[in-house]
Amino acid sequence: MPDPSLFEVFPTPSDAPFVIEHIAEEFTSVCPVTGHPDFGVITLRYMPKPGSTGGVCIELKSLKLYYHSFRNEGIYFEAVTNTIRDDLVKAMDPQWLQIETNWKGRGGIRSVIRADHGDVPRHFLGR
Amino acid sequence: MPDPSLFEVFPTPSDAPFVIEHIAEEFTSVCPVTGHPDFGVITLRYMPKPGSTGGVCIELKSLKLYYHSFRNEGIYFEAVTNTIRDDLVKAMDPQWLQIETNWKGRGGIRSVIRADHGDVPRHFLGR
Amino acid sequence: MPDPSLFEVFPTPSDAPFVIEHIAEEFTSVCPVTGHPDFGVITLRYMPKPGSTGGVCIELKSLKLYYHSFRNEGIYFEAVTNTIRDDLVKAMDPQWLQIETNWKGRGGIRSVIRADHGDVPRHFLGR
Amino acid sequence: MPDPSLFEVFPTPSDAPFVIEHIAEEFTSVCPVTGHPDFGVITLRYMPKPGSTGGVCIELKSLKLYYHSFRNEGIYFEAVTNTIRDDLVKAMDPQWLQIETNWKGRGGIRSVIRADHGDVPRHFLGR
Amino acid sequence: MPDPSLFEVFPTPSDAPFVIEHIAEEFTSVCPVTGHPDFGVITLRYMPKPGSTGGVCIELKSLKLYYHSFRNEGIYFEAVTNTIRDDLVKAMDPQWLQIETNWKGRGGIRSVIRADHGDVPRHFLGR
Amino acid sequence: MPDPSLFEVFPTPSDAPFVIEHIAEEFTSVCPVTGHPDFGVITLRYMPKPGSTGGVCIELKSLKLYYHSFRNEGIYFEAVTNTIRDDLVKAMDPQWLQIETNWKGRGGIRSVIRADHGDVPRHFLGR
Amino acid sequence: MPDPSLFEVFPTPSDAPFVIEHIAEEFTSVCPVTGHPDFGVITLRYMPKPGSTGGVCIELKSLKLYYHSFRNEGIYFEAVTNTIRDDLVKAMDPQWLQIETNWKGRGGIRSVIRADHGDVPRHFLGR
Amino acid sequence: MPDPSLFEVFPTPSDAPFVIEHIAEEFTSVCPVTGHPDFGVITLRYMPKPGSTGGVCIELKSLKLYYHSFRNEGIYFEAVTNTIRDDLVKAMDPQWLQIETNWKGRGGIRSVIRADHGDVPRHFLGR
Amino acid sequence: MPDPSLFEVFPTPSDAPFVIEHIAEEFTSVCPVTGHPDFGVITLRYMPKPGSTGGVCIELKSLKLYYHSFRNEGIYFEAVTNTIRDDLVKAMDPQWLQIETNWKGRGGIRSVIRADHGDVPRHFLGR
Amino acid sequence: MPDPSLFEVFPTPSDAPFVIEHIAEEFTSVCPVTGHPDFGVITLRYMPKPGSTGGVCIELKSLKLYYHSFRNEGIYFEAVTNTIRDDLVKAMDPQWLQIETNWKGRGGIRSVIRADHGDVPRHFLGR
Repeated sequence: MPDPSLFEVFPTPSDAPFVIEHIAEEFTSVCPVTGHPDFGVITLRYMPKPGSTGGVCIELKSLKLYYHSFRNEGIYFEAVTNTIRDDLVKAMDPQWLQIETNWKGRGGIRSVIRADHGDVPRHFLGR
Repeated sequence: MPDPSLFEVFPTPSDAPFVIEHIAEEFTSVCPVTGHPDFGVITLRYMPKPGSTGGVCIELKSLKLYYHSFRNEGIYFEAVTNTIRDDLVKAMDPQWLQIETNWKGRGGIRSVIRADHGDVPRHFLGR
Repeated sequence: MPDPSLFEVFPTPSDAPFVIEHIAEEFTSVCPVTGHPDFGVITLRYMPKPGSTGGVCIELKSLKLYYHSFRNEGIYFEAVTNTIRDDLVKAMDPQWLQIETNWKGRGGIRSVIRADHGDVPRHFLGR
Repeated sequence: MPDPSLFEVFPTPSDAPFVIEHIAEEFTSVCPVTGHPDFGVITLRYMPKPGSTGGVCIELKSLKLYYHSFRNEGIYFEAVTNTIRDDLVKAMDPQWLQIETNWKGRGGIRSVIRADHGDVPRHFLGR
Repeated sequence: MPDPSLFEVFPTPSDAPFVIEHIAEEFTSVCPVTGHPDFGVITLRYMPKPGSTGGVCIELKSLKLYYHSFRNEGIYFEAVTNTIRDDLVKAMDPQWLQIETNWKGRGGIRSVIRADHGDVPRHFLGR
Repeated sequence: MPDPSLFEVFPTPSDAPFVIEHIAEEFTSVCPVTGHPDFGVITLRYMPKPGSTGGVCIELKSLKLYYHSFRNEGIYFEAVTNTIRDDLVKAMDPQWLQIETNWKGRGGIRSVIRADHGDVPRHFLGR
Repeated sequence: MPDPSLFEVFPTPSDAPFVIEHIAEEFTSVCPVTGHPDFGVITLRYMPKPGSTGGVCIELKSLKLYYHSFRNEGIYFEAVTNTIRDDLVKAMDPQWLQIETNWKGRGGIRSVIRADHGDVPRHFLGR
Repeated sequence: MPDPSLFEVFPTPSDAPFVIEHIAEEFTSVCPVTGHPDFGVITLRYMPKPGSTGGVCIELKSLKLYYHSFRNEGIYFEAVTNTIRDDLVKAMDPQWLQIETNWKGRGGIRSVIRADHGDVPRHFLGR
Repeated sequence: MPDPSLFEVFPTPSDAPFVIEHIAEEFTSVCPVTGHPDFGVITLRYMPKPGSTGGVCIELKSLKLYYHSFRNEGIYFEAVTNTIRDDLVKAMDPQWLQIETNWKGRGGIRSVIRADHGDVPRHFLGR
Repeated sequence: MPDPSLFEVFPTPSDAPFVIEHIAEEFTSVCPVTGHPDFGVITLRYMPKPGSTGGVCIELKSLKLYYHSFRNEGIYFEAVTNTIRDDLVKAMDPQWLQIETNWKGRGGIRSVIRADHGDVPRHFLGR
């Protein structure tokens, strides 16, 4: 089961603007209807709050273990995307955060889902 | 015949902003003039209305079956694009929706057609 | 000789916003100085006027034949680009139209020329 | 030695907006310190002034010969970029002009330098 | 140890706007936890202050040697990114500067970190 | 229904060795179990018998129409491949013939099937 | 647990030479040491015995379910490769069979393992 | 009309083995049935006879002009391939010669035709 | 210093033919002349002796640590390649083994070096 | 002028079989007819004689300087290829040597020339 208690964070090491992107290319969960595995790429992009105001970053290994906790979970693409965004926003309270999930095709259709928290920083528009 | 009665929808699972993209790489219809098959990629992008205001999303398998219903239909590129947009807007009443159809070449010319409903969300400009 | 009388048009099949792109990858004309053949890709992008206001679209086969009419014409890259734009604007009176010609290299330099008519639609900027 | 007297120009063939891009993929000069050859791609992008106001375009072959005149010149990347921009601005007095030089790696670092004259046209932002 | 005393600078050779990008594809440092090597690509983009106001550029070879000084340093991705930005801002006092570090995957997750100093120039948005 | 009566042939225009490859990128048939469409690329490679011994080549448009005759046929990948090989061998009696069918993925598995008639010509080994 | 009882076969539909390739791009198992997931692409290539001699082919969906049975199995790369080869050889008794497993990188090293049963057919050498 | 009198040759500059490949990416002729233009890439590969035995090579510019002479010729793909091979064999009497013509798609099928004269040199097999 | 005592091996898990390829994309050593870092990709390919005859395979993590032991070693490309081959042949006594080292460019020249031990297996020729 | 006196060699560091490939991507010479620069990629592949029999390898920097000595030389593609082969064979007396020169297009035709000395080693066929 998705387990946000796995998250560990550390203080933002700077007060200057800072965008971090973690691309997990080996995510898998299970389709709740057919029981067949789903495979996707999960991209996390976020701008932490400045360190001096208590901002934090996600520790990379804890993020990996959290993703692994979806492995045998029966869950829809949309719910994966929203769950990850909500769990990470709770864990980090970032200035901006975006989850993009990119799923391998099923029946000839492949899907990309993007959920935001906060405003896209000006110099990230169009990327 | 294109059959919008095939559509099934489900309530938007979140109230936070949310963009969904379904890329169908195996679409085929028939040229109304020559009777020869046309092949294209149909990309649907949309932002549903929030769940708490009655917003809905399209169910993926029903979308696939709807696309299949064009298989032996004699219909122009432009009409395919407009028909899909109109049928989906009626079925979902989304905040924003875009259909991009990308057709294999005929006689050395290949075509891309893009039809919008509503304003492109600010953080999707330039993509 | 470039022959705009070849153009055929049909009424825009919708009043909703609509962008059409036709990419002709097999264009050839002749260099007026050396007599050697030039090869290029001609991309036409346009937004027709709405159907209810008399807007029209270009018929695809007539566009192809018009392009063929340049085959043995001695004409510069810049003149090809402007001629096609002007002939198509006259034939369709579109809301926006853009011709991009992309030429194979000559003497180690390859060229791209882009001519606009009207304002680029807001959601096409940056593409 | 870089020789701007090689430039030839011709009147802009139109008054409508018009962007021209010449990509020279086979540029070479010499490093002033080591004497070793440098190799790069020089991209010129510009919007000429309208023909009716005396605007001119650069003749392609003369541009090629001008580039060849750098072949045995000992000159830094930054100076190549500025020199070409300044020489072309002088020769054409364009509405907008941009030189982008893209250099093959030296010691594991490759460089791109971009120098502008005038404002980037609105529909070229983000490209 | 990262050694900013290695930096050498030279006066900006022009007063016109000017963006420089140095892409170092062979950066390596050491993970402070596991002691295993990390590999990444470091992209520096900056706009120097005009030469007439005392603006300077970074000398390319000194940049390379500075990067080499990280080779056996145990240091996190985020700290590499911030350290390079801060050291270069101190050395050059540029109008705008951006460091993008792009790291090879570890445990199936690869990371990109981007730190800015000053506002992204208007014609660089969306790139 | 697959209809080999559509084939037209013409005499091999030479007696010298000669290999012909026709790549049809837009083939579609129907899965006999699920009724869902299958999409594939069909590559025909053959060496005709010399013209002076009565050898023939397949006429390209008749090949296209023959492929179209599979459009609404419920038929397995293996049967498509064998049927096309057998029908073409009957129509042309070539020296060597090979059919390679390359199918879009279903359930995460994509398939390639290759059926030969006669020996691969020596200078085609390894291609 | 890997479960070869899931396999279903069907008679080879032809006596002519015939090579089949099934590429499963979404395979996952678990590292027996660390418990972390492994991800790979499994390619099966085989030439069945002729139908008239009792030759059989593997049914595609049963192959997929067999692959799924590795999902939570702790097993090394080499053992995955050998197990799949041995199980399939037992189920089909083919003329030739090859398993190629291609694994995503771990600690900066990615691996490809290839196990054969029988001689590679002459016209497959070098592919 | 294809005009082999355009060919010029020069003595092979060496007696050691020697393979030459000229790839013409901008070939065009006309379909004899529809009158529409055909576009293809013509690759010539040959091994000349040694210079000391009177062997000759084709002069590059004369080859280009010969190719241009097909521009308005109504001629099939197969005939183009055979004609070029036969004309070049006559002009050069080489040890080995191969013409590969690679045609842009027509009606969803693209074609490659390969005609040989003499045996492929041993170290060219499989390329 | 390159340290072959780091190697660990395990018995070949099968007697059937078996080829293993480990591609290490993040190798670095130091140029013995300039002291600058070198970066390369090291590909190991081998066929172990059968398990029943005492054949062994290299343990993946021990291979990684062995590669790390070159990090601060001043050593030429050729010596890296030969040293790795010789150390691995000693550790495994394989049927066939090949080391291919692929080095990033220096001064505009990049290098690939390939050293073999034993005969390339027949079905690996041409790959 | 091409200057083989620049070559330096060193003894082959091993007696086991050994293939070395140096790919120089930034070669330039001058067309003897037009005086325009030519640009190409020069690939040297060779197998030195074993060290114990007096075999030698080419020193990389000396190879680079030798290539630079062609910079302002008016010389044909064929002569470049043969000259480099002959000069290197003289300097190294290798078991096998191959020069492949790959030239940027001129007038729409690009060329590849390959000259061998000695027999291609068996395990290099088809590469």
